[in-house]
Amino acid sequence: MTSILILNGPNLNLLGTRQPEVYGSETLSDVEKMCKTHGQALDIDISCLQSNHEGALIDALHAAKSKFKGVVLNAGAYTHTSVALMDAIASVSLPVIEVHLSNIHARETFRHKSFIAPVALGQICGFGSHGYILAIDALVKHLAGSTA
Amino acid sequence: MTSILILNGPNLNLLGTRQPEVYGSETLSDVEKMCKTHGQALDIDISCLQSNHEGALIDALHAAKSKFKGVVLNAGAYTHTSVALMDAIASVSLPVIEVHLSNIHARETFRHKSFIAPVALGQICGFGSHGYILAIDALVKHLAGSTA
Amino acid sequence: MTSILILNGPNLNLLGTRQPEVYGSETLSDVEKMCKTHGQALDIDISCLQSNHEGALIDALHAAKSKFKGVVLNAGAYTHTSVALMDAIASVSLPVIEVHLSNIHARETFRHKSFIAPVALGQICGFGSHGYILAIDALVKHLAGSTA
Amino acid sequence: MTSILILNGPNLNLLGTRQPEVYGSETLSDVEKMCKTHGQALDIDISCLQSNHEGALIDALHAAKSKFKGVVLNAGAYTHTSVALMDAIASVSLPVIEVHLSNIHARETFRHKSFIAPVALGQICGFGSHGYILAIDALVKHLAGSTA
Amino acid sequence: MTSILILNGPNLNLLGTRQPEVYGSETLSDVEKMCKTHGQALDIDISCLQSNHEGALIDALHAAKSKFKGVVLNAGAYTHTSVALMDAIASVSLPVIEVHLSNIHARETFRHKSFIAPVALGQICGFGSHGYILAIDALVKHLAGSTA
Amino acid sequence: MTSILILNGPNLNLLGTRQPEVYGSETLSDVEKMCKTHGQALDIDISCLQSNHEGALIDALHAAKSKFKGVVLNAGAYTHTSVALMDAIASVSLPVIEVHLSNIHARETFRHKSFIAPVALGQICGFGSHGYILAIDALVKHLAGSTA
Amino acid sequence: MTSILILNGPNLNLLGTRQPEVYGSETLSDVEKMCKTHGQALDIDISCLQSNHEGALIDALHAAKSKFKGVVLNAGAYTHTSVALMDAIASVSLPVIEVHLSNIHARETFRHKSFIAPVALGQICGFGSHGYILAIDALVKHLAGSTA
Amino acid sequence: MTSILILNGPNLNLLGTRQPEVYGSETLSDVEKMCKTHGQALDIDISCLQSNHEGALIDALHAAKSKFKGVVLNAGAYTHTSVALMDAIASVSLPVIEVHLSNIHARETFRHKSFIAPVALGQICGFGSHGYILAIDALVKHLAGSTA
Amino acid sequence: MTSILILNGPNLNLLGTRQPEVYGSETLSDVEKMCKTHGQALDIDISCLQSNHEGALIDALHAAKSKFKGVVLNAGAYTHTSVALMDAIASVSLPVIEVHLSNIHARETFRHKSFIAPVALGQICGFGSHGYILAIDALVKHLAGSTA
Amino acid sequence: MTSILILNGPNLNLLGTRQPEVYGSETLSDVEKMCKTHGQALDIDISCLQSNHEGALIDALHAAKSKFKGVVLNAGAYTHTSVALMDAIASVSLPVIEVHLSNIHARETFRHKSFIAPVALGQICGFGSHGYILAIDALVKHLAGSTA
Amino acid sequence: MTSILILNGPNLNLLGTRQPEVYGSETLSDVEKMCKTHGQALDIDISCLQSNHEGALIDALHAAKSKFKGVVLNAGAYTHTSVALMDAIASVSLPVIEVHLSNIHARETFRHKSFIAPVALGQICGFGSHGYILAIDALVKHLAGSTA
Amino acid sequence: MTSILILNGPNLNLLGTRQPEVYGSETLSDVEKMCKTHGQALDIDISCLQSNHEGALIDALHAAKSKFKGVVLNAGAYTHTSVALMDAIASVSLPVIEVHLSNIHARETFRHKSFIAPVALGQICGFGSHGYILAIDALVKHLAGSTA
Repeated sequence: MTSILILNGPNLNLLGTRQPEVYGSETLSDVEKMCKTHGQALDIDISCLQSNHEGALIDALHAAKSKFKGVVLNAGAYTHTSVALMDAIASVSLPVIEVHLSNIHARETFRHKSFIAPVALGQICGFGSHGYILAIDALVKHLAGSTA
Repeated sequence: MTSILILNGPNLNLLGTRQPEVYGSETLSDVEKMCKTHGQALDIDISCLQSNHEGALIDALHAAKSKFKGVVLNAGAYTHTSVALMDAIASVSLPVIEVHLSNIHARETFRHKSFIAPVALGQICGFGSHGYILAIDALVKHLAGSTA
Repeated sequence: MTSILILNGPNLNLLGTRQPEVYGSETLSDVEKMCKTHGQALDIDISCLQSNHEGALIDALHAAKSKFKGVVLNAGAYTHTSVALMDAIASVSLPVIEVHLSNIHARETFRHKSFIAPVALGQICGFGSHGYILAIDALVKHLAGSTA
Repeated sequence: MTSILILNGPNLNLLGTRQPEVYGSETLSDVEKMCKTHGQALDIDISCLQSNHEGALIDALHAAKSKFKGVVLNAGAYTHTSVALMDAIASVSLPVIEVHLSNIHARETFRHKSFIAPVALGQICGFGSHGYILAIDALVKHLAGSTA
Repeated sequence: MTSILILNGPNLNLLGTRQPEVYGSETLSDVEKMCKTHGQALDIDISCLQSNHEGALIDALHAAKSKFKGVVLNAGAYTHTSVALMDAIASVSLPVIEVHLSNIHARETFRHKSFIAPVALGQICGFGSHGYILAIDALVKHLAGSTA
Repeated sequence: MTSILILNGPNLNLLGTRQPEVYGSETLSDVEKMCKTHGQALDIDISCLQSNHEGALIDALHAAKSKFKGVVLNAGAYTHTSVALMDAIASVSLPVIEVHLSNIHARETFRHKSFIAPVALGQICGFGSHGYILAIDALVKHLAGSTA
Repeated sequence: MTSILILNGPNLNLLGTRQPEVYGSETLSDVEKMCKTHGQALDIDISCLQSNHEGALIDALHAAKSKFKGVVLNAGAYTHTSVALMDAIASVSLPVIEVHLSNIHARETFRHKSFIAPVALGQICGFGSHGYILAIDALVKHLAGSTA
Repeated sequence: MTSILILNGPNLNLLGTRQPEVYGSETLSDVEKMCKTHGQALDIDISCLQSNHEGALIDALHAAKSKFKGVVLNAGAYTHTSVALMDAIASVSLPVIEVHLSNIHARETFRHKSFIAPVALGQICGFGSHGYILAIDALVKHLAGSTA
Repeated sequence: MTSILILNGPNLNLLGTRQPEVYGSETLSDVEKMCKTHGQALDIDISCLQSNHEGALIDALHAAKSKFKGVVLNAGAYTHTSVALMDAIASVSLPVIEVHLSNIHARETFRHKSFIAPVALGQICGFGSHGYILAIDALVKHLAGSTA
Repeated sequence: MTSILILNGPNLNLLGTRQPEVYGSETLSDVEKMCKTHGQALDIDISCLQSNHEGALIDALHAAKSKFKGVVLNAGAYTHTSVALMDAIASVSLPVIEVHLSNIHARETFRHKSFIAPVALGQICGFGSHGYILAIDALVKHLAGSTA
Repeated sequence: MTSILILNGPNLNLLGTRQPEVYGSETLSDVEKMCKTHGQALDIDISCLQSNHEGALIDALHAAKSKFKGVVLNAGAYTHTSVALMDAIASVSLPVIEVHLSNIHARETFRHKSFIAPVALGQICGFGSHGYILAIDALVKHLAGSTA
Repeated sequence: MTSILILNGPNLNLLGTRQPEVYGSETLSDVEKMCKTHGQALDIDISCLQSNHEGALIDALHAAKSKFKGVVLNAGAYTHTSVALMDAIASVSLPVIEVHLSNIHARETFRHKSFIAPVALGQICGFGSHGYILAIDALVKHLAGSTA
């Protein structure tokens, strides 16, 4: 059975309470449940992890290599600053899909830059929590080895 | 019945023949058929249009206002250079989702910049033709007025 | 009898419906009528043209050379990106006055740059549709060969 | 009776003697008389002031608040360097129209930047002394509360 | 009773031993005691925390939301690099005052940039450990709901 | 008896009337009185001066050398543009504390740069008129020759 | 029989009338005739096309794929702004030689940048209409499959 | 007996498995053993530590002050982003030698910048794991107080 | 009898007391006397003026036109920021020689830029007060209409 | 009889052995012979010179003034760095044609900049050794005093 | 017997007399002797060459190809400016190790850039003359075809 | 008897023939004679040297150390590109005065930058050949150990 890691970065634990006009009113727990329910419908095992620590995210990516077939990663603000996360993704040979709740390209200039993007399969942003569902779909499609 | 416009920009008419290692081997006709089939399954009407002319894309967006509920737009290279397309999207009050076949953030620096993004709902890139399907799903979700 | 071309670029056909808080509520047709009425009062023939196509605007400038004494040009978003329009103005030996409805220097930085300006007689921006009247006055004054 | 201040900045006292090929051969006194004559025709009171001192221009703007309905400002070279003038305009709640004799966007790059523009109603440049007349017209139009 | 968190970032545990000519000779423990004494005089409860871990500082800010009325934050070098800390402050609805021992604007250019500033109430820098006392005073004043 | 100069720059004479949502509703006179009252409590003589003229501020700094023990300086917009003020502070051997009513680092990018900072003791910004009180406290502490 | 397309972009239809001191006094028709005559001498079929429309140039490149062995392209001002033309050249597998009448590297800085260059075989500029003859020679040499 | 710390940063725990064509096929354990063997030959005590956490590396540098005579540091990706590590090195008074497996100056531009370099004794890069041996030799030479 | 104006800008009145290690220990009065003595030897009339006010320096340049044959100008910090002074020099048709006590090109980067230079005859810097003597010699030579 | 100098710069002596996949397999001697043969056919005298020394290339250009009618110059890497070569070409009044074996505009960004271009007649690049033949043709055409 | 060239660039002939606080007190002759002695111990032949001429260094690299197995290169200031040296190294197929006496990354910004680095095996800097010994060791290790 | 070296760089051998409208009509020999005559009047020995080779200029500066008391250096175009010359001047402990015939700060931007300036005593530019006389005077004054 295919297993996928949903990995969330800094401040995403506050989802639902943090600037709801930007990030929506669901909590991280709501989103994770929604992902797991979606996974069940697709017969896929979904695991979830969140940390505010850059190092912990790197550790999680290293550990993911032997446990998951792919990763849906919302690296939060580390997206824009972390070369170490970029290297971590390049170091493990797993497909990673980059997700952002908001449309980062429509916000401050420093949020347009992603260190994740050059090593990710693709990017989905601007669709709130639904972006995770789209990312799971994209990952499943990718793992099925076909693009149409 | 909800209707959506799939609008493709410059060089996308060559899809399938142009650098297939980057853009995949399906033709534009294949992709448009796939989108229409997906639309039928969702009970949505899908129309398709492609042009290499920036002005024709602007005209199409203007005309879309009264005919469609939303637009899936792959503006191709005009994404990176066209303020006029940006203004066209801002001028019509339709939700537009930006799609790219390749992960533009993993390519040359000048492809990281999108003039479409600040006026689009969200961006999906890097998943080949499957990105159009994901974009239709995202647009349907958005039009349904709910983010979860 | 002196004749002047009022040439409008991309998205200006939407005038009155597009972001009225920025661009005012008159339609392009209203503005063109107002210009023609003003022309009659000054005993000047006013012709009007609008296109969303960069190439069509260039064609129009080329054609203007033998038909008009001067041009009032609102190149819209092409102002900021089109070296080809700049060259077209330099290629025909007609006085061109650059007009913008909004104060482009008070908006996003990329709207501060004008490729039209170095080859235009002068620039008028920020006065809504009244800017066209001011531009016609300025052009008439210029054609009268006097600056006071 | 509506009163308007024509405020001129550094080196404009030399008008007519300074680089006449760029700025024309009329003196500042000629231009001020022309503005006053134009004001009389429009039944508007025109006052004129010139200073080479940035601080004196700021003082004049502050004092203008209670005496004038609007300001036509040619801030000369301070246009490109003075954040203090920008703040002065923002501090008094008067409509200010920015005028330049030459087309500043067709000259050295450092003259393209205007700190006045973001707080001005609009900008008119490149029409020599006639620009003041156009600016008075634009201000009168604006004060009449209508844009067409 | 009002409670305030004094939150110190990387390398501030070395205070007193690290470059004393720049940062002074008091230890962090001295400074924290001084703050607590000052708090007692103002009838305010002062808590102190220091960490070299960016993630731990984010966790502390999240936790602060329900326990403190405001935060005095010296984020050390993370000030200049951490978008994640910026987002953490924006996510919790607490007034945060940014403090630096040295005058960061008089040091290397990369220390002039603060990601904390856009989401902080204000900034105090250059007064050594006395800056914490000034920050507590500023926060108390702010919490008292008056600016004079 | 220690004497301190409170030196205010361009547009600060409009305090209370200028953008009160940004700068508060107290007048400069109110702020100066508040400073003098605070000075009396600390047994310090407070003098106040304001000018919109860069040269007058330089003259005042030169004159301050023999009359005051330190200066609290809010150079307003000259903060961001005046190398001459920077040199004036470096030329007189007085401690100068930089104050701003608003948090300049949270505003437009051109307000982040301070030419005063490299020659000032420290910077306090974002606390409205209370910033002057904090600056007086910081200066008194500094003059007392101790940092704890 | 080898056939080559001479493709000219915006404003080149004005050749001979546009700034003759920069671009020479021959008309486009003269140049095209000269190319055809040169082609006859080399037993090569030369076709010519000019358009001011970016989209039309892209269409022409797409169509060229099945009809020509190579293209001599003077993209005029689109050289400096068109990523879409760059992609069009990359999309068709034809050798393209970039020609400019003037030495673009000796003119304004924005004319030094060519989006055509990275996908062209080579560049010839500064030799007026003779550049087309040199380009035909270079293309013939290239098609002959030898570099000496 | 002289003791030296070999401190490795993010992703170096994957050495041998991560992009072996760039970083070689030895594991971190192999490299650490090689360093210890080399230390024994030089009668020096070598300790080794690796962490993916920026804060943990800072903690380790702080702790190193009382236990080691010098540090060989491969900060991995934190080299390019961490001002906090830079400050940590400046805070402890230990000689630090910067090592990189690959030649960082021959890779992406963002890897050319080192925040470690301004506070390190020197830099050795491009020699794979042998760089650690060279760094130990350089540190021993330095500690011996002689440069020839 | 030839007359020359020695015009000094901001902070130069403090000469001798301001950073003597940079600017030397002579007072402005000493330097002016030295210049006058040198003028007498050359049978030239030397007048001297200093102001901290940018506007006053502009006024002085305007007035100089009818009274002097040339100007030796040390514009101090206004050198680096004043477009208005640049325009003032261009407006009066007098040869102006730019002098600086210190070698501005060996100091902070922002002091390398001179707005005076493009309109000055030449620049002399780095020779302390002797630079004024050299500038007088250069001006006399220039006025004598010969360069050898 | 017209004589032309073929002047080659640094590393071109290695032609044929240096990166043949970029620069082709002919030696410099082969290329020079080919040029001479081509010259004979055109009844032109061709001389050849190569040096790795920037100064020697300058000396050669100076000496060329009295001996040749024009120069075909491949300045190699000095193209991108040598202002001195630029000045040398401007100093001698000879037409110079810039040649490069590879398409420098399709390589690293620092190779796009040419200090030669602003003072050269034109540029030919990307055609391997055939570029020298094209350059000789272009020079002969230019010397014949006609552009068609 | 393996032979290595130690190649030194501009100003290194002054070693020992030039800024000894930066570069140490040994002369170039001392360093070369030290290298040769070290070579003898490793049974390697060491040759040494120094020149202040960029062209001579290029000539030496070309000549090295047939005489040496590798080069230790301290290109001095040419490191930061010479594309020609970069090309020379790329042209000869010899391993080159870049050495600098001082830690160039801790000095002025323009010394951080190395044109040598992208074509060198690795870089060693900051260890004074001992860097040459480390470079010889690194080169020997490399030539032995092993990285551990 | 004091001896001074007049050292001239690339293209200055063409003085009098090269762009006389910029550099004057005297030959280098004329200028050198004029310097020597001036030297005799001051009882100073003047030697002169010119080279187009960067390395030769460095060699000359090295050799100057033991033979001259100071150098007047016109490094021509190497001024703007040569870090090696900068280092050469820093390496020999001689006062060097930078001279330019033209006002380099009034020409192309790339000529504003001087690598010589940070290590030179001062700079004199814009006075044609008379600049050498002024430089000799300045050097003599400097060597006399007095600035007034």
